[in-house]
Amino acid sequence: MEASKTNPKRVSESKAVMTEMVMPNDTNPMDNLMGGNLLRWMDIVSSICAGRHCEAHVVTASVDHVSFTKPIKMGEIVTMEATVTRAFNTSVEIYVEVFAANIKGQNNRRSNHAYYTFVALDGENGKPIEVPPVLPLTEIEQQRYDSAIRRRELRLILSGRMKVEQATELKMLFASLPVEKLKS
Amino acid sequence: MEASKTNPKRVSESKAVMTEMVMPNDTNPMDNLMGGNLLRWMDIVSSICAGRHCEAHVVTASVDHVSFTKPIKMGEIVTMEATVTRAFNTSVEIYVEVFAANIKGQNNRRSNHAYYTFVALDGENGKPIEVPPVLPLTEIEQQRYDSAIRRRELRLILSGRMKVEQATELKMLFASLPVEKLKS
Amino acid sequence: MEASKTNPKRVSESKAVMTEMVMPNDTNPMDNLMGGNLLRWMDIVSSICAGRHCEAHVVTASVDHVSFTKPIKMGEIVTMEATVTRAFNTSVEIYVEVFAANIKGQNNRRSNHAYYTFVALDGENGKPIEVPPVLPLTEIEQQRYDSAIRRRELRLILSGRMKVEQATELKMLFASLPVEKLKS
Amino acid sequence: MEASKTNPKRVSESKAVMTEMVMPNDTNPMDNLMGGNLLRWMDIVSSICAGRHCEAHVVTASVDHVSFTKPIKMGEIVTMEATVTRAFNTSVEIYVEVFAANIKGQNNRRSNHAYYTFVALDGENGKPIEVPPVLPLTEIEQQRYDSAIRRRELRLILSGRMKVEQATELKMLFASLPVEKLKS
Amino acid sequence: MEASKTNPKRVSESKAVMTEMVMPNDTNPMDNLMGGNLLRWMDIVSSICAGRHCEAHVVTASVDHVSFTKPIKMGEIVTMEATVTRAFNTSVEIYVEVFAANIKGQNNRRSNHAYYTFVALDGENGKPIEVPPVLPLTEIEQQRYDSAIRRRELRLILSGRMKVEQATELKMLFASLPVEKLKS
Amino acid sequence: MEASKTNPKRVSESKAVMTEMVMPNDTNPMDNLMGGNLLRWMDIVSSICAGRHCEAHVVTASVDHVSFTKPIKMGEIVTMEATVTRAFNTSVEIYVEVFAANIKGQNNRRSNHAYYTFVALDGENGKPIEVPPVLPLTEIEQQRYDSAIRRRELRLILSGRMKVEQATELKMLFASLPVEKLKS
Repeated sequence: MEASKTNPKRVSESKAVMTEMVMPNDTNPMDNLMGGNLLRWMDIVSSICAGRHCEAHVVTASVDHVSFTKPIKMGEIVTMEATVTRAFNTSVEIYVEVFAANIKGQNNRRSNHAYYTFVALDGENGKPIEVPPVLPLTEIEQQRYDSAIRRRELRLILSGRMKVEQATELKMLFASLPVEKLKS
Repeated sequence: MEASKTNPKRVSESKAVMTEMVMPNDTNPMDNLMGGNLLRWMDIVSSICAGRHCEAHVVTASVDHVSFTKPIKMGEIVTMEATVTRAFNTSVEIYVEVFAANIKGQNNRRSNHAYYTFVALDGENGKPIEVPPVLPLTEIEQQRYDSAIRRRELRLILSGRMKVEQATELKMLFASLPVEKLKS
Repeated sequence: MEASKTNPKRVSESKAVMTEMVMPNDTNPMDNLMGGNLLRWMDIVSSICAGRHCEAHVVTASVDHVSFTKPIKMGEIVTMEATVTRAFNTSVEIYVEVFAANIKGQNNRRSNHAYYTFVALDGENGKPIEVPPVLPLTEIEQQRYDSAIRRRELRLILSGRMKVEQATELKMLFASLPVEKLKS
Repeated sequence: MEASKTNPKRVSESKAVMTEMVMPNDTNPMDNLMGGNLLRWMDIVSSICAGRHCEAHVVTASVDHVSFTKPIKMGEIVTMEATVTRAFNTSVEIYVEVFAANIKGQNNRRSNHAYYTFVALDGENGKPIEVPPVLPLTEIEQQRYDSAIRRRELRLILSGRMKVEQATELKMLFASLPVEKLKS
Repeated sequence: MEASKTNPKRVSESKAVMTEMVMPNDTNPMDNLMGGNLLRWMDIVSSICAGRHCEAHVVTASVDHVSFTKPIKMGEIVTMEATVTRAFNTSVEIYVEVFAANIKGQNNRRSNHAYYTFVALDGENGKPIEVPPVLPLTEIEQQRYDSAIRRRELRLILSGRMKVEQATELKMLFASLPVEKLKS
Repeated sequence: MEASKTNPKRVSESKAVMTEMVMPNDTNPMDNLMGGNLLRWMDIVSSICAGRHCEAHVVTASVDHVSFTKPIKMGEIVTMEATVTRAFNTSVEIYVEVFAANIKGQNNRRSNHAYYTFVALDGENGKPIEVPPVLPLTEIEQQRYDSAIRRRELRLILSGRMKVEQATELKMLFASLPVEKLKS
């Protein structure tokens, strides 16, 4: 699917790290970071990572299911790390992982993760352009590369662009494979 | 599942409408509304709707898959309508629909939709509290009420809290039903 | 005064609703929404309503007297509803009503109202353009339509563009009519 | 009306000056400063002036009619000067004048003015407190001091707290006096 | 060094005053104004002053050492006064002084000061342009004018554009003169 | 000077990385990132680094001379890396380096650097507390550690807390050493 003429690029070449301090206006009346603000920050750091990998302007195409299970408090430090997982013709999937810690650098914890996809655009005419393939090197990079095809099928089904019976990878998963394969 | 002691409430009782004008800082360098900003606005209007239905403080528990297919330009008007679809003990699912139009009120179009879930909390001790059931009245309200159980199964699977083989509703869907039942 | 060639439009066609949550930065040190922030929000929702009615770019021409009698607290939900009352050649008067409620949807109350006027501009040359007349249908719409002429006279006097002796409608009011006619 | 036990204060003691550069997010799609943003800035500088005169927390009670006749462009510099005009038991009227100039300090012009009123509050119990009288010294200070009583009558009428027939000062005005006395 | 063909301008012609209220988002978790926010405000007011003196677009070239010794609390009023000290061909040095007071106008104190330099640019081609000389009139203006040359030497050394042995003025200072000459 | 009872910490333990996209409101009318905004961002990322090293609340004590020689354009990506250089009883010096690149990850360049100092505070009583010493490991870490003492002398002189004749390290520098020793 990635028979691109451009050379494949490594994951580390486009990694982006963003750090934010949770300010009063980012919180709800219970002094927790609002989910929507985190979604916005994750979108920004992911788009920076996608722009670096694609060497192009990018626009958000989708975000997958995101859970918010552990609250992040006002004044805490949020660190987000975005890495590319796989390219699909004119789009890329970005994995973003969120860590939180208090202002003293203590209570450091993994709080969220998400998958965003972006389409690369030509800056002149705004048309989608082909993007470089991803070259996975580490084991975890390879795992995310492999599972990307299943997440893509689910995405296409959920957005109505693929029929359930066409989702061969996903069917195998729902039939037999452990769900961890889907989660990453 | 909603054998609550509180009285059921109608969907119309908690509907929330939010209108925003796309300002320069909300856009990417191609002058389109950034996906992350829309996710943030949808989170706010959904949380207002959830707070009204639950008559409680609420925190975002999750957002389902969201697609961004049609760009919204700088200066355009974004209208978001949030309605409750179904309650699950201490949480509610909110359906939020996004419309865009230019500043003259023209080119009005449906641009996005999403499902957010929120947990209702006691303001004193921050513990989850039971929420009122939803009483669907119109056909579309009933459809969203019914399909909520399938979306919930997918959510639980994707967040690792349910095994694939337990997802009875979803299995039926992947086996035979048209995918529209999942999408709404 | 509205012998326009364009067809009259109904009030409901351009109604705009905006909802905001009062965030920390919107408040004064006593944790109340600052008056200036409410004036800014009312201006935005009114301009969206005016743009829809006029199907044109609009700029704020004036705001009438606004009172702030009931404080709105941090974390509360503010809902603003803007409707057009009457058109005058190249301008429209917008009535905006403000409601506040706590985060649980309780203590819902009418907190403020204001009249804004906007001039419709041609996007190309920035010159004022003729706007469609307003077609009042309900009793309250008719009342606001009728009283608009008196508010306009007061506005012209206060901005020095009309002499007191020319304000025939207003003179009648100050002579005999109950003041409610002026307030709406 | 100002038989206060506190000593009168001069206008110059509480004068506040605020300068802002018009940023992209402050403008409408025609690159003019939005009226609502100017109303918000005028509210802030007026409240600072009121706080200084009253030596107390203050909340906005009202803003009088404001006209926006001359557009202010993006990148221009806005200077606002707020001075107290007169005190009324627990409230003060503030006159705020707006000047605009381009970034080179050229095309300096008076663009707007407004009257805001504020109520002084006790920080402990939030109850209104008596404020110091204003001691007008210059001719223009005396003029604004004198005309404040007429603006106050109009304000009370417009907010429904005074009947037209009670507005003795205003009646005289509408009967005979030149309108300049009302405008400032 | 200022053998400019343009006429010298007085310091008072370009003085800029900015007032800000410290809002929640401007503070750190200890409720003090964050140093970085003050640096940003000082940059804005200084650039307005520089633009007025140069009658040109300006960009920040540098900021000298700034100390933050006295905390400013949330809700306090910050007043910044920026004045030009001296011009150097295509750049100007601006002195900005910061005062803080509580919301009642009490506890007024001098809290910070800084020297910013700006380069004047031609709006068309972005090239540096010659700026008018400064005409110091008061004793303090003359002192800041004189000491500007020493601050400039230190600036050139610290940015690596001058060698220590060339800094004749600064050498004299380090050899013998009291340090007050350097501080202002 | 760092005869602390707490164990020394390595530089890498507290390194903080922040990435920002230059938005319209961050720029001046020539579409360049305003110097003041960069100063604010550098303050935030430095304070996060300082908080991690000190494991305490920190407040900005000073920023050293900062030059802005290469403009950063709207839409570009700014990456800031903050590392601790040396501790002094209750304060730390942080070195922050700024890189800019366009949205495609191209034209990557080192654009600025600065030294900020922070005082560590006890969260309870706001009193300064002792901080862990820094353990430099790499050659560049050792260089910054060594030169910190000279920057500190200059800082104390510039803030009037040290007399020129006491600045033994700095005197040596001004007498004979190459200026590179001062710059980093």
